[in-house]
Amino acid sequence: MRRNILKLKVKRLGISTGGPLVAIINEEDAKVLDLHPLDRIKITKGKSIETVVVDIGKKSVVPKGTIGVFDELTASLPLKDRDSVAIKVAKKPVSLDYIKKKLDGYSLSKKEIDQIVWDIVHNRLSDVELTFFIAASYCNPNNMDETVWLTRAIANEGDRLQLKEKKIIDKHSIGGIPGNRTTLVVVPIMAAAGYTMPKTSSRAITSPAGTADTMEVLASVEFSLKKMREIITKAKACIVWGGALNLAPADDKIINVEKSLMIDAESQLLASIMAKKHSVSSTHVIIDIPIGPNTKITDRKKAEHLKYKFKQLGTKLGMKISVILTDGKEPIGNGIGPALEARDVLKILRQDDDRPLDLEKKCLAMCTQLFSLMGKRNGLTLSKQLLQSGKAYEKMQHIIKLQGGNARIKPEEIPLARFEYDVIASKSGKIKSINNLFVAKIARIAGAPQNKGAGIYLYKHIGETLKKGERIMTVYAGTKSKIDYVEQVLEGMDDIVVY
Amino acid sequence: MRRNILKLKVKRLGISTGGPLVAIINEEDAKVLDLHPLDRIKITKGKSIETVVVDIGKKSVVPKGTIGVFDELTASLPLKDRDSVAIKVAKKPVSLDYIKKKLDGYSLSKKEIDQIVWDIVHNRLSDVELTFFIAASYCNPNNMDETVWLTRAIANEGDRLQLKEKKIIDKHSIGGIPGNRTTLVVVPIMAAAGYTMPKTSSRAITSPAGTADTMEVLASVEFSLKKMREIITKAKACIVWGGALNLAPADDKIINVEKSLMIDAESQLLASIMAKKHSVSSTHVIIDIPIGPNTKITDRKKAEHLKYKFKQLGTKLGMKISVILTDGKEPIGNGIGPALEARDVLKILRQDDDRPLDLEKKCLAMCTQLFSLMGKRNGLTLSKQLLQSGKAYEKMQHIIKLQGGNARIKPEEIPLARFEYDVIASKSGKIKSINNLFVAKIARIAGAPQNKGAGIYLYKHIGETLKKGERIMTVYAGTKSKIDYVEQVLEGMDDIVVY
Repeated sequence: MRRNILKLKVKRLGISTGGPLVAIINEEDAKVLDLHPLDRIKITKGKSIETVVVDIGKKSVVPKGTIGVFDELTASLPLKDRDSVAIKVAKKPVSLDYIKKKLDGYSLSKKEIDQIVWDIVHNRLSDVELTFFIAASYCNPNNMDETVWLTRAIANEGDRLQLKEKKIIDKHSIGGIPGNRTTLVVVPIMAAAGYTMPKTSSRAITSPAGTADTMEVLASVEFSLKKMREIITKAKACIVWGGALNLAPADDKIINVEKSLMIDAESQLLASIMAKKHSVSSTHVIIDIPIGPNTKITDRKKAEHLKYKFKQLGTKLGMKISVILTDGKEPIGNGIGPALEARDVLKILRQDDDRPLDLEKKCLAMCTQLFSLMGKRNGLTLSKQLLQSGKAYEKMQHIIKLQGGNARIKPEEIPLARFEYDVIASKSGKIKSINNLFVAKIARIAGAPQNKGAGIYLYKHIGETLKKGERIMTVYAGTKSKIDYVEQVLEGMDDIVVY
Repeated sequence: MRRNILKLKVKRLGISTGGPLVAIINEEDAKVLDLHPLDRIKITKGKSIETVVVDIGKKSVVPKGTIGVFDELTASLPLKDRDSVAIKVAKKPVSLDYIKKKLDGYSLSKKEIDQIVWDIVHNRLSDVELTFFIAASYCNPNNMDETVWLTRAIANEGDRLQLKEKKIIDKHSIGGIPGNRTTLVVVPIMAAAGYTMPKTSSRAITSPAGTADTMEVLASVEFSLKKMREIITKAKACIVWGGALNLAPADDKIINVEKSLMIDAESQLLASIMAKKHSVSSTHVIIDIPIGPNTKITDRKKAEHLKYKFKQLGTKLGMKISVILTDGKEPIGNGIGPALEARDVLKILRQDDDRPLDLEKKCLAMCTQLFSLMGKRNGLTLSKQLLQSGKAYEKMQHIIKLQGGNARIKPEEIPLARFEYDVIASKSGKIKSINNLFVAKIARIAGAPQNKGAGIYLYKHIGETLKKGERIMTVYAGTKSKIDYVEQVLEGMDDIVVY
């Protein structure tokens, strides 16, 4: 019995929606099936079938009798131009009922959360529907059970790195502090100590550099899971870009929606960070929460609360978690921007005289905590020995080589952007504050992270004295016009460095 | 100084987004300006400038150096293929801060609400951002001040019907009751009494017929504001489709997002209904809230609360409001579907013997309330006289004629769909309940409202007795296969009519 079925010809639109599976049908055809925008249809081609969200178009886009398909759909259902397909009205996914339930303030069950995450990963929800879920979780925060289920579901609905080692260590720093490039020092120290540390990092979204951007100055960071495993087998560790892997893909989609309103629900933040750890099978994790004005976490009370939640969630996921609250008042290290940060890191690993001691101190503190998590009491001494003996540097060189980089590069050989601009002290004084946000902004205007050599070199930190005429910082940029722009913006920034 | 500006060639995509202004740029160009999906750019063409949301595409869609534009943008900024435009990064609209504020549970000011509604109407918000606003208002309900400001903003950001009459009457029925076609009787009675009633109605979204669909059986319903005013000047009233006018356009966009999750925040419902009344300058309004299982409002307590809110909002808007709580347990009238309902309405206006008395009674009660609002005590008598004397029918014929219809058509001349299916009583008994949702579903499966002649004729109501073998209802559909489908679905519906 042919009823409520329409036969249409495929027209490939050659455009990606960046997410949901969507098809456009003509307004006349839509009337026949009584379809409205955001309704769903089942598309059948031979024995293959796929459910997609429908959009309604005029005949200039899709003539009557045709169906316009976006790239995401042709990836999951092989369709060529002029292919004949059958469409019929489909039910909405059940997860919409669960999203509505959450919006109404009720808690969700494990089964309901699993279904929502499955639908997110498989592009079954429209942007509007996904946004309702994010907003619902923001207004009606997840309880600890929901957070655990969400974390597990996000990690499980993606690839997972399985290693034969029973103890896997990991670290995470909550963002917002320019120059805070601890990973590139902590990973080689801990790997040199014999621990396994399969580190995945992110690129910058709104900052001048992410760990992956900085590592990319020294070596490649985009690898498959298979290749990542090979590197770890040889070096016990790696430092790669998580975005090149299919780890916790739901998280990327969630972050994409949150970004548009710059919201970051606590339970989503917890789930997001811990899902990434769970997906590489981490067992011992240190979390660094910097506190300071102009950072993500501005007061100690909130940081303490977050610390408690991280430990609680870790326990439920079978991980040992150590959380440290650190000073986030000013940038850490001297370099800000991928190349300048890579120079800082190499200087520490090589124990050069001009290395940034604040960054080194923080890295040693983190390693000490990690050793302690692994049951070692003398972590600080061990970490220092691994640095001073050159074993950590040797380990880093091994990782750089395995990741296709030049292991022998010296800090001063890392190229910086061509044009320089010095910010000079107009009076003598003691530095009272440095504004993280403004420093990041200037480094980005200068071209970081797109231009790896762009950024800022900071000569002084809070508490140090400045003499009139002394340099406070040097800004590096690839073009003269960017330097001009930096100069102009700096004029309006009285409080980037207060002294 | 040329900085942070990119020159691109226009490529028209020929696709409509159905809302937000969007442009796609190549991923390489996006890197140059450090743009990410959902960021905003300013596009300059000569002296014209427009701010749009950006999407990032691969070179198969937009080669490096080109910008792909959707139809909404070419409507507001005239662009041809290969036109040269300059783009630069733009700030996000300030209303995003207000939406975030609402999401965090704070109340908004008049200025903030005005800005959000302006941005909605002018396509300045992405779907994700609009959804955050709807979700925020759902989780953190608007207070009465916010509701008043929202209602005014929605009405003011659109066209308004201004008439010289000081008293303008209007009505609204909260949806969910099949056959509840009171407008087509109330409008001619009140206009025959000399009152001005510029009625705008909606088409069905999820029901078998909206008032506009039913009126369209008798006359045209799509008019410009100018033409609408002409009709009112001649007949004191009209019954047109609101969707053809630019009244309260923000409301349509809000409803479109709410629909996808079937949510309906109380304050949005209030603002939505009252903004439509405000936009035609109504001063005296009756609101009908049917209560019953399987309707929008299921219990009396909620209805009483809504009644209170409607009256409060009306007072703040300078309107006199009468709210009646009515019986929504079962369909009203006999016909369900545009043609069948139009037959019911004409029978009442002509005072035919076989007219549906339940629908007539409800219409008379509504008119009585409206007369009372206008200070007349003997409203029931007046209404009955206008019906019985044929004056209401004469008025309706005048309206039908002015709206381009056949004023002389008799109820039985209105064509019904060709195929019929009788639902027969399998035993004798008294009708205990009729399920509104199931009745609506069957009428829609039969083809209503797309097929105007499709639907249901209901022979009996709750409390009436059925003899075994007697017809309960007749279903009308345009094709045999639809009838087969109706038959099959009815088999699984034990409780559509319980007796």
